Amino acid sequence: MRYDIAIIGTGPAGLSAALTAKKRNKSFILIGSRHLSVKVEKAHLIQNYLGLPSVSGEELKKAFLAHLDAEQIAITENRVSQVFAMGDYYALQLGEDIVEATAIILATGVVTGKTFPGEDALLGRGVSYCATCDATLYRGKDTAVIGYSAKEEEEAAFLAEIAGSVVYYPMYKEEPALPENVKVLREKPVSFAKDGRKVVLTTDAGEAVYDGVFVLRDAISPGTLVPGLETEGAHVPVDRRMATNLPGCFAAGDLTGLPYQYAKAAGEGNVAALSAVSYIDQLKKA
Amino acid sequence: MRYDIAIIGTGPAGLSAALTAKKRNKSFILIGSRHLSVKVEKAHLIQNYLGLPSVSGEELKKAFLAHLDAEQIAITENRVSQVFAMGDYYALQLGEDIVEATAIILATGVVTGKTFPGEDALLGRGVSYCATCDATLYRGKDTAVIGYSAKEEEEAAFLAEIAGSVVYYPMYKEEPALPENVKVLREKPVSFAKDGRKVVLTTDAGEAVYDGVFVLRDAISPGTLVPGLETEGAHVPVDRRMATNLPGCFAAGDLTGLPYQYAKAAGEGNVAALSAVSYIDQLKKA
Repeated sequence: MRYDIAIIGTGPAGLSAALTAKKRNKSFILIGSRHLSVKVEKAHLIQNYLGLPSVSGEELKKAFLAHLDAEQIAITENRVSQVFAMGDYYALQLGEDIVEATAIILATGVVTGKTFPGEDALLGRGVSYCATCDATLYRGKDTAVIGYSAKEEEEAAFLAEIAGSVVYYPMYKEEPALPENVKVLREKPVSFAKDGRKVVLTTDAGEAVYDGVFVLRDAISPGTLVPGLETEGAHVPVDRRMATNLPGCFAAGDLTGLPYQYAKAAGEGNVAALSAVSYIDQLKKA
Repeated sequence: MRYDIAIIGTGPAGLSAALTAKKRNKSFILIGSRHLSVKVEKAHLIQNYLGLPSVSGEELKKAFLAHLDAEQIAITENRVSQVFAMGDYYALQLGEDIVEATAIILATGVVTGKTFPGEDALLGRGVSYCATCDATLYRGKDTAVIGYSAKEEEEAAFLAEIAGSVVYYPMYKEEPALPENVKVLREKPVSFAKDGRKVVLTTDAGEAVYDGVFVLRDAISPGTLVPGLETEGAHVPVDRRMATNLPGCFAAGDLTGLPYQYAKAAGEGNVAALSAVSYIDQLKKA
């Protein structure tokens, strides 16, 4: 099955895009988390999202989820590790599956934190961004997880069922709630290197050697996610239609640049979906 | 008093801009109507304004008004007939008053319907877009009002207190509710011409001569409103910051082009306000 549109991200941009795709009767897959967005969830008070006066992040999240439910829009809770432009469609690596879509909307938010030195070169060769996808490659092996939010603990727990050992590096203050066989290390990762088939992780406390290291950020850098995509630092340049440099690939929300605002993100998701619809309709005509 | 920002229009773009201007502690004036927007008010069902599932236009309007009230944002119910770029500020003709603002945000929506042949040339010379502003010029004289929505009946009624006679041409189906001394003519205006100091209005039923004709559309064309503003048909070209060709003049909502969507408008209003804030802050530094 090939979807008309794959929407990657469940912040305001992705959700708004999904609502509009639904309204326009397109088939689509919305990929992300029922947590929606850490940025929304943790917001204290939002006063300028028109129509919802003075809401907490938690309340805004509830309103967004209620809207999805009202429109019977499901979230596919998974992580896209890579997207390939195949000409007239896109192939998305989603866990162990490949999903196809004619158009894609990137609504992943901005990457908080740069990649570590050595990380890019080891991606797919000992470094992974998705435990759900790659855990089975490390059956019985020594692994580490660098987790950027408490959300990632679930992936680490899953990995612990399969891998020989799991060391968890929390990149946040809260105490992780993890199975007993996961060792938590409060060290700050500094860089990655290759040693034969192993990965050497250097931290502020020394070195450790693993078969695999999972780096679980809220979002992965868009250029890494979609090879060939034009980027400007952490951002993806778009025109007023939310089109990127790749035909059929649109972007919306914080990913497209400042200001980082809920209303802007929702508006851009709406426009990106309509642009994707007209892209698909034109392809069908051709 | 000079405001930091003047926001013209009370659709989703203008309201969203006002919320953000308030949040950023800027002084501002929001000019429009407590009816907010005819387009919102008359919408049957809106399903893709994220956070408010399946709302009628009337419900959306209520939610928007409640948000304004919660933030204690007042609407100045008046019509801006002209805006002049004065260098480092703007002067707005507002009824009989002049209001000053360092930056302006145009959120007037798109003009529904073109101007009539001869209309542009007679503006300010027998043709007016604002009865509240210009009624006193026509004390005891013969006037006509071409009203594009029931909202305009109030202006016609006000004019009838001052002018010698008022003929009302409704451009909509509903029966106008007007004072007895206003004559309603179901004729279709075609063109304007000048005859000495009088205006000749040609309709599909013949000719009529008036001292003054008021054309009351939901919005007046942006190029007419702000001399020097670059336009493209009914739209105002903007960049991703919502900046127009005039420094300190931003635009948001339907006025900036397709798609005409509530979420897009709210998002653009939000961005326009933040761009106006940074424009003002830079001016102050200079």
